[in-house]
Amino acid sequence: MRTPICERLGIELPLFAFSHCRDVVAAVTNAGGFGVLGAVAYSPERLDTELSWLDERVGGRPYGVDVLVPGKVDPSAHDRGVHLMDAVPDRHRDFVTHLLAKYGVSATGRPLTAVADEFGRRVTAAGATSLIDVALRHRIGLIASALGPPPPEMVAKAREAGVPVAALVGTVEHARRQVAAGADIVVAQGGEAGGHTGEVSTMVLVPQVVDAIAPVPVLAAGGIASGRQMAAAMALGAEGVWCGSVWLTTEEAETPPAVMRKLLAASSLDTVRSRSRTGKPARQLRSAWTEEWDYGQESPGPLGMPLQMLVAEGAMARIAAAAEKGDAGAVELVNYFVGQVVGQLDRVRPAREVVYDMVSEFGDAVERLRRLSE
Amino acid sequence: MRTPICERLGIELPLFAFSHCRDVVAAVTNAGGFGVLGAVAYSPERLDTELSWLDERVGGRPYGVDVLVPGKVDPSAHDRGVHLMDAVPDRHRDFVTHLLAKYGVSATGRPLTAVADEFGRRVTAAGATSLIDVALRHRIGLIASALGPPPPEMVAKAREAGVPVAALVGTVEHARRQVAAGADIVVAQGGEAGGHTGEVSTMVLVPQVVDAIAPVPVLAAGGIASGRQMAAAMALGAEGVWCGSVWLTTEEAETPPAVMRKLLAASSLDTVRSRSRTGKPARQLRSAWTEEWDYGQESPGPLGMPLQMLVAEGAMARIAAAAEKGDAGAVELVNYFVGQVVGQLDRVRPAREVVYDMVSEFGDAVERLRRLSE
Repeated sequence: MRTPICERLGIELPLFAFSHCRDVVAAVTNAGGFGVLGAVAYSPERLDTELSWLDERVGGRPYGVDVLVPGKVDPSAHDRGVHLMDAVPDRHRDFVTHLLAKYGVSATGRPLTAVADEFGRRVTAAGATSLIDVALRHRIGLIASALGPPPPEMVAKAREAGVPVAALVGTVEHARRQVAAGADIVVAQGGEAGGHTGEVSTMVLVPQVVDAIAPVPVLAAGGIASGRQMAAAMALGAEGVWCGSVWLTTEEAETPPAVMRKLLAASSLDTVRSRSRTGKPARQLRSAWTEEWDYGQESPGPLGMPLQMLVAEGAMARIAAAAEKGDAGAVELVNYFVGQVVGQLDRVRPAREVVYDMVSEFGDAVERLRRLSE
Repeated sequence: MRTPICERLGIELPLFAFSHCRDVVAAVTNAGGFGVLGAVAYSPERLDTELSWLDERVGGRPYGVDVLVPGKVDPSAHDRGVHLMDAVPDRHRDFVTHLLAKYGVSATGRPLTAVADEFGRRVTAAGATSLIDVALRHRIGLIASALGPPPPEMVAKAREAGVPVAALVGTVEHARRQVAAGADIVVAQGGEAGGHTGEVSTMVLVPQVVDAIAPVPVLAAGGIASGRQMAAAMALGAEGVWCGSVWLTTEEAETPPAVMRKLLAASSLDTVRSRSRTGKPARQLRSAWTEEWDYGQESPGPLGMPLQMLVAEGAMARIAAAAEKGDAGAVELVNYFVGQVVGQLDRVRPAREVVYDMVSEFGDAVERLRRLSE
């Protein structure tokens, strides 16, 4: 299944693994795929440490780094004269306090205000660019930007270093805009994907993006966690696939046990696109958190990005800790970003095995199609 | 691309065309596919006329009939002691009157009450069964049931006549239930499809349904209007594809010109799943009608099925007539059931050409995959 993108990046399999866990990135890269480390809200120092760790383990094989570059953020994120947490309205703070109390989650622990400014400002173009500077000092083979078009400075730096830039899109219009902004590779991500996502499905989106920006290579994302789905994505015209959810239930993932149990039990009906964690629509497990924010009578409605991230991540850190202790209310609230493929994920496997199974099933699917068309 | 289902039904191509237009059904059937006439809310007499017309034109080739069998309907639909329109609350009638006035659509014309009872009761199991009786007197090769499991009487009659029963599903659970109820073929329909649809995408749903009910054959629906998409669906494990939207912009379709212009201009972002036309979630063009019912401040919210159908169809008949006269407000309101593939439909073609293009592109997609896996 070598496609031109394999030649370009020097890899065996056009199977891209997005993960926040360096162990997953290393395992997939070493199995012949291409691991991409999600570095959202990392400090530059932390990113440097993680990439040095990776450099030591992948034997010179290329891997990538993904940063979040929102097209639009709440203006307060750019105003260094205010503390970001001060921009969060009282009724949003009060709603979180009410939620934690309702579900019996203790509100003790370090207040987030101290780190909020740094955290919130990382999800801006300036924040992303400082991560790029670090990344380019390592042997990375790809920089990916989620959400908005890559900032010109990021493209210029990547070009100078000879590193291709990939951009995630959910519409044809965004694909055109990303290519105009300098993206070398476009990841067309259907609405069934986990995390920030649009509404058009992979089946519909991928061929339209392929046709709109040819000959720029397109990777398909959303709904892909098996070899049949990989074959389908490539039948649509993609040069490879970009998978995220499937790695959450691998042995290498640092998925907390309470979340892992929810992922393994969930059906494909158990996800929802909600703005309740980041301020932008992101697919995640449906939980008391999403239900209360999206449908609760007392919900003030989510804020924009990054303010809602600050509100949500502060609370979710406490919720996750309580869920690990088995507190029933916290288990109801806890969730995680994941796509509709969560319904296929019913056991924990090594990441390498996931890669090999996908390749094997891909071959079977192609062989079946070939026989049908004889 | 012959699959076992082609042998079973005696057809050349596993390409199923759902359409309310007999001309489309005839054209696809004669091109080697399998046309399925959507007979929702037809009177038995009308269905008899349509099927006789088809029998004369398809030279003995098999075709199918699709009836709507809702799992749950408003109880008033079963109570012959009430007029259905009397079960529609005043505020729903008032909202429609307000909507028509707001958009300048004249409310003259025959009131729907006279035919409402007959119309509404056809979308019940009893109504569907009376259509089946008519259909089985013709040379049909398939009976399809949308929404709920096929009623036992329908399965028994079809079995006796040697006609397979197909059932449309949007979840794995429904697929299992349909097979238990006697379905011979399951159409796994992703949330990107037009009309009544669930939330799980085709890419995610099809492999799960295939695995859950093997060896029962599965057709894929939702997001399929090209040969690449057909190849993708079959890579997922489907034995064929079930397409609806793509026929709306064929020469044979009776799509009204005002609707046709909207379909040709729409992008894949211009559809919405809304309960505003039938009472159950159905994907359709986003229009002032869906926006007013779903988000309008004065909206009373949609009723259940079939009451919302009565409310909506009565108004939509007037809206469509006014839209054809070019009334701007009516053009804003008018819409139609269509899937996200509407973004691919940008010119009017003969149905036969659609079939041949899909087959040709299917071959190219399979050949490309074959080369990749060498």
